[in-house]
Amino acid sequence: MFKIGSLEKLIHELNRLPGVGPKTAQRLAYHILRTPDLSEKLQEALKLVQENVHQCAQCFSYTDEAALCRFCRDSQRRQDLICVVEEPSDIARVESSGVFRGIYHVLHGSISPLDNVGPQNLRIRELLERVDAGLEQTPVPYLASLQESGSASGEAAASALAPQITEVILALDPDLEGDTTVLYLAKALQEKQLKISRIASGVPLGSDIDYVDDRTLGRALENRVEL
Amino acid sequence: MFKIGSLEKLIHELNRLPGVGPKTAQRLAYHILRTPDLSEKLQEALKLVQENVHQCAQCFSYTDEAALCRFCRDSQRRQDLICVVEEPSDIARVESSGVFRGIYHVLHGSISPLDNVGPQNLRIRELLERVDAGLEQTPVPYLASLQESGSASGEAAASALAPQITEVILALDPDLEGDTTVLYLAKALQEKQLKISRIASGVPLGSDIDYVDDRTLGRALENRVEL
Repeated sequence: MFKIGSLEKLIHELNRLPGVGPKTAQRLAYHILRTPDLSEKLQEALKLVQENVHQCAQCFSYTDEAALCRFCRDSQRRQDLICVVEEPSDIARVESSGVFRGIYHVLHGSISPLDNVGPQNLRIRELLERVDAGLEQTPVPYLASLQESGSASGEAAASALAPQITEVILALDPDLEGDTTVLYLAKALQEKQLKISRIASGVPLGSDIDYVDDRTLGRALENRVEL
Repeated sequence: MFKIGSLEKLIHELNRLPGVGPKTAQRLAYHILRTPDLSEKLQEALKLVQENVHQCAQCFSYTDEAALCRFCRDSQRRQDLICVVEEPSDIARVESSGVFRGIYHVLHGSISPLDNVGPQNLRIRELLERVDAGLEQTPVPYLASLQESGSASGEAAASALAPQITEVILALDPDLEGDTTVLYLAKALQEKQLKISRIASGVPLGSDIDYVDDRTLGRALENRVEL
């Protein structure tokens, strides 16, 4: 076989990326070899992300800022409205719709018994804590944990009360795992005094009813909006 | 806009890979964030390739060995038979056919006036030097250059004569650029005492003549093989 050890290692690692098969990985590796500055820039970028990007202490989205992400720190946004998403990348999608001006909570997945992902593997406990802290007017959970660990900002914690949450919007995928997670969250949140909603499923804008699948059309009929 | 500086930089660099658009780059970046060891392994692999892999001094294929690649050093292979390819990755394709047992020469591209790639931008001069050295029984070109630079292996150079080349097989793509390069090489090599050939174009094995395009079928008819 025609093999160059270090090149094979690079191809193997590229192959681990989603949607990159062995053939594509080989093409990418040869492209990297042909483009000298790309390798260096990629290494730099990977290192920078590894060092700087971490999860926000409140909403568990990714951020490269101190403890809280820009949404959690933004006083211009409604702090009583939480949009629950599966992945940090979903935040960018919701943001670009331009309709939502509240804050987020990232579950980092959805309940999927087949993949051994239960509620305890997701950030569901943290979501319930955020809601509870708002309802009971206790300190913000992440600040309380800072106080326990004796952090510098601990003193401020006692004064900073968690904002009251009035609505939780579940923006989860309309698939089996998303539906299961919605059911679980609805049950866990139903006795608390807040509105729970889920984003609508139905016919996408600009599409043709002829080409919409049965289940989507069924859901669109069930969730019809009164005029 | 929802932007994390270092993440955007990584997405930008991933976007430079062939076949990776902005959306895919974003998906890859988030996958890398979710998989902590992948980032480190990728950085290692990229660094290793950057440090170890270089072009062979004789055939300009990639290698991580000292000066010559495994094919140029392999005395089991016919050193009088050169297969000319456009890219180092083409070698793996020719090898896996199992039919060729000679050595290679990588041009690193093909003549393409539209992209400002002329014969002087390819390893064509080096190919002609290899052929000439073999015909004139002068030292191997890459060893001669080592001798000039006063290298340790310089003394061996005088004794190592270049192997006589008897045939040059052009395994270039059957497209406009490949055809142009074949014409150029055929003209440059025609007065030297050696056989020049090009790999056959025609109907791929296992395919259906119904589905073959006109130009391929035309070429297959022109290049028909007598039985």
